[in-house]
Amino acid sequence: MAPIVGKLAVIGQGHIGSSISRAAVKHGLAREVTVTDADPKVRKAIAELGIGIAKVVDTSQEAVADADLVIACVPVGQYGALAQDIGKHLKPGAIFSDVGSVKGSVVRDVVPHLPAHVNFVPAHPLAGTERSGPDSGLADLFLNRWCILTPLPDTDPEAVATATAFWQALGSYVEVMAPDHHDHVLAITSHVPHLIAFTIFHTALKYERDTDLEVMKYSAGGFRDFTRIASSNPTMWRDIFMNNRDAILDILDQFTGDLNAFADAVRSGDADKLVSDLSTSRLARRKVIEKEHISVTGDKNKTPELDFIVRPYGGGD
Amino acid sequence: MAPIVGKLAVIGQGHIGSSISRAAVKHGLAREVTVTDADPKVRKAIAELGIGIAKVVDTSQEAVADADLVIACVPVGQYGALAQDIGKHLKPGAIFSDVGSVKGSVVRDVVPHLPAHVNFVPAHPLAGTERSGPDSGLADLFLNRWCILTPLPDTDPEAVATATAFWQALGSYVEVMAPDHHDHVLAITSHVPHLIAFTIFHTALKYERDTDLEVMKYSAGGFRDFTRIASSNPTMWRDIFMNNRDAILDILDQFTGDLNAFADAVRSGDADKLVSDLSTSRLARRKVIEKEHISVTGDKNKTPELDFIVRPYGGGD
Repeated sequence: MAPIVGKLAVIGQGHIGSSISRAAVKHGLAREVTVTDADPKVRKAIAELGIGIAKVVDTSQEAVADADLVIACVPVGQYGALAQDIGKHLKPGAIFSDVGSVKGSVVRDVVPHLPAHVNFVPAHPLAGTERSGPDSGLADLFLNRWCILTPLPDTDPEAVATATAFWQALGSYVEVMAPDHHDHVLAITSHVPHLIAFTIFHTALKYERDTDLEVMKYSAGGFRDFTRIASSNPTMWRDIFMNNRDAILDILDQFTGDLNAFADAVRSGDADKLVSDLSTSRLARRKVIEKEHISVTGDKNKTPELDFIVRPYGGGD
Repeated sequence: MAPIVGKLAVIGQGHIGSSISRAAVKHGLAREVTVTDADPKVRKAIAELGIGIAKVVDTSQEAVADADLVIACVPVGQYGALAQDIGKHLKPGAIFSDVGSVKGSVVRDVVPHLPAHVNFVPAHPLAGTERSGPDSGLADLFLNRWCILTPLPDTDPEAVATATAFWQALGSYVEVMAPDHHDHVLAITSHVPHLIAFTIFHTALKYERDTDLEVMKYSAGGFRDFTRIASSNPTMWRDIFMNNRDAILDILDQFTGDLNAFADAVRSGDADKLVSDLSTSRLARRKVIEKEHISVTGDKNKTPELDFIVRPYGGGD
């Protein structure tokens, strides 16, 4: 594949960052790939992994010097401090991007620290596994996954086109939307479900403590699936909850209203409403399942549905 | 294996009922296995399956004649009518059992129709897959699964011992508890999670409709796992919600309180409380996962933890 950019800098070499590094090197997406991490142990690990990355450097400022595309892969609460650290070192025309799970807060935190001559293209690849750390990176992590870009109104369309081409070269399906829409999408499909899964364990624990009876011992498959996400990293989730607060509370408010309506139907024994609601949910669930092969599984053997594929920004078909 | 009972009658030959029939025949747990189903197509299918079942009869009354153990496997709202139909045809000393997902309502519906000389041992095997119908039965369905018995205060201990021996011979781990405890356990680990999974789809659908924006298209793996249970059968779940109403509303009330407390921590940015709560949930989730190999997977290659195995009722060591 022809290189999409001259120099790529990837800051942060955890699961996502080292996957981007691996994929960029594997597919030849940049003439030069320079990476770094705040943790010297991670830098050492990446250097020793021998994954073909040209250069591991000690500081973010050094990494971004002369870079055409900078992708920062740090926890969602740290983008402001990072932008402050590197803003003045970005060259004119450079594209700065991120991989944060929340977009409104990253835009809010980053924008004040970027010079006007830098193009900011916020991004969120909907990928990732339970794993973490530099050893866990996978060049194929983004294959057949969504990557959502939330450019600002004044972002240069050329920069968005370059970021789109980069993520498409990694195998992703790219969508462009407003940060607030992204944050509500993620609140519904990820953040509120996580919050609920965390909560149901508290309810179960309290019930066990209050009654001195065992409950979770009898958990069957449904509960296991339902709560798998509750074993995710607490610090990461604290940051997501705090940074996507408004969208989460908005969706949670709607969910609580729907839950109360459902409870009322149970309370009053409204069989018709129950069957109607349950059937609607089942259909919606099947709608999600049908789309699984491009939005979820990352299975390269399945054919994507063409109407979901977003063409390169400004490009033809 | 030596037969545990003389004549076994299994009423209802869906997924659970036909699995019990298959397992009883396979392991020789009764000298005679007679089965029936209200649907003539199901009776025909079972007769043609050639799974070694001695006898398929046309009516429940005929099936239970002279039976030592009767296991009814019908939807949770139909046990009362069935008991009324067969009560007078059960022989003195017969054991009547069921497989309902709710125990309080089944006890309430069945007891008035059983003569005093019949021993009622309500049961709930925590097993089952997404499949249904007579073709879907599996002799190994109950292997390494829990089976919860909720005998009444005046149930003969000998009858409980026989039911326990039967389910243990099917490979299950048997626990005895009060119907109300069972119903709360299931409300927490199954019924309320289902209700939540159904509800989150309504919230997502309404959000899409109100904003004319797509949301579920971007669902990733976590949401898929979280909502798998929402694709379950609407009629079955209507019956469960209506029959376990009190326990479900009780647990839902506790859950809503916990959810509001969590939302307050998000709203006020209480980072310490968030990390503490998230860590507690993660630990609880791991506790469930650790017990998975006996309570969930039904994997016969894994060694059960001895302290969870319940000895035959009244048995030694």
